[in-house]
Amino acid sequence: MKLDQLESNIKSKKSFLCLGLDTDINKIPKHLFKHSDPVFRFNKLLVDELNKKIVAVKINTAFYESRGLNGWTSMKKTIDYINENYPEIFTIADAKRGDIGNTSKMYAKAFFENLNFDSITLSPYMGKDTVLEFLEYDEKYPILLALTSNDSAEDFQIPNNLYQKVIVKSTSWKNSNKIMYVVGATKPNFLKIIRNIIPDNFLLIPGIGAQGGDLNKIVKYCTTNKNKKILVNISRSIIYAGKSKDFVSMAVKKVDEYNDLINF
Amino acid sequence: MKLDQLESNIKSKKSFLCLGLDTDINKIPKHLFKHSDPVFRFNKLLVDELNKKIVAVKINTAFYESRGLNGWTSMKKTIDYINENYPEIFTIADAKRGDIGNTSKMYAKAFFENLNFDSITLSPYMGKDTVLEFLEYDEKYPILLALTSNDSAEDFQIPNNLYQKVIVKSTSWKNSNKIMYVVGATKPNFLKIIRNIIPDNFLLIPGIGAQGGDLNKIVKYCTTNKNKKILVNISRSIIYAGKSKDFVSMAVKKVDEYNDLINF
Repeated sequence: MKLDQLESNIKSKKSFLCLGLDTDINKIPKHLFKHSDPVFRFNKLLVDELNKKIVAVKINTAFYESRGLNGWTSMKKTIDYINENYPEIFTIADAKRGDIGNTSKMYAKAFFENLNFDSITLSPYMGKDTVLEFLEYDEKYPILLALTSNDSAEDFQIPNNLYQKVIVKSTSWKNSNKIMYVVGATKPNFLKIIRNIIPDNFLLIPGIGAQGGDLNKIVKYCTTNKNKKILVNISRSIIYAGKSKDFVSMAVKKVDEYNDLINF
Repeated sequence: MKLDQLESNIKSKKSFLCLGLDTDINKIPKHLFKHSDPVFRFNKLLVDELNKKIVAVKINTAFYESRGLNGWTSMKKTIDYINENYPEIFTIADAKRGDIGNTSKMYAKAFFENLNFDSITLSPYMGKDTVLEFLEYDEKYPILLALTSNDSAEDFQIPNNLYQKVIVKSTSWKNSNKIMYVVGATKPNFLKIIRNIIPDNFLLIPGIGAQGGDLNKIVKYCTTNKNKKILVNISRSIIYAGKSKDFVSMAVKKVDEYNDLINF
């Protein structure tokens, strides 16, 4: 997908929402277990109902890998289903990979070719070599961890402003306009600083919902009337809003609430 | 596996070698394609012949993920085969994962339970939250990226001595004696500094062989008569030493050469 198209979808849907499919087989409603792949079924029902109200879907690969081959199958079925039925949904592999050279090329192949995601989250620790292979693909995007929403982001990201250095340095790489950045909603004051450095790059913002970030502050600090380049990821507080057969309708209600919070 | 046992294996086998199974289906000998899973077959034949001459096996997950479900199957068969037949081999998932909280727990489940590796490589960018879940398992070990062997390690790891800060900070975490560290062989002078900070932790050292690091310097800087806590990973220059039916015998020859270089 072109990023102009993504931004245009955000404007027409009046939604920044990215649905986080951190689907834990131990947390989904019991009635789904009559289906051969209850995790895929859960994801499908949510996306079928929510696709017009959201602009992106983020699949957290850990939740699928933890179930081995069965989990990888659920992931593959989910991304294939979305790509086939909802090509206007921007897809994110939240995989936080980060390796170099030939290995990096293999990860790009795994997520941009075999699974055909639009984007993938990457850790910047190993530097430029981690990202370059992913920038070689047309209409595919690396999403670099900059400032994450967890407490121990303070261990290494904040001392010496490492998160700023990661952003500044990465803007010098070829095709860097395609790099998106993960910036946690739990640190709104940092968002202003980051938006000053990269006014035009897309930001993926986790930490709303279960983690407690403030959606209005984020929209205020990171968007303008013209520029709507953010994706706000919400996972648990949407997908587990209902615990039984009502899980889809409860998820819809939650999504509507989040969308209504935003004054476009 | 207990780390005392691993060190004892190193001493009795007089080998620091970790066999890196970065198995690329496009690079393995053609005669293997008569088997249903040529990648597994390649790995099996190598491990069957080399197990007495090496102490560890490292599986680079990217090479398996790039082939989707088939690749994940090859990986699962390889690790299961090694665990069943060669329990004295220390196994490493070179996965470079790095996430937090519940997601981190899922990755631990994927690699320490479902796949049953002894250890996994992790990126420290998100801080302590990335590692803690992995330290909860008995006889399982996180291997933290400290100073990697690639050129762009200089982007973020070396400025402000971030790699040292990662090491120092992580030694304050609970059960930190179980943390192993990735330290690239291509930067031998840094190895001395690192060994001073963590004289007793295991180091996983890539960058020998194809990448050109000097094995003798590493052994000199990182081990003593008593302390033999390093694993030296070599991948391509062993597994692709031969291009056809001779690939196992050529790999044995290479492994013997590397082991002979070391004066125990």
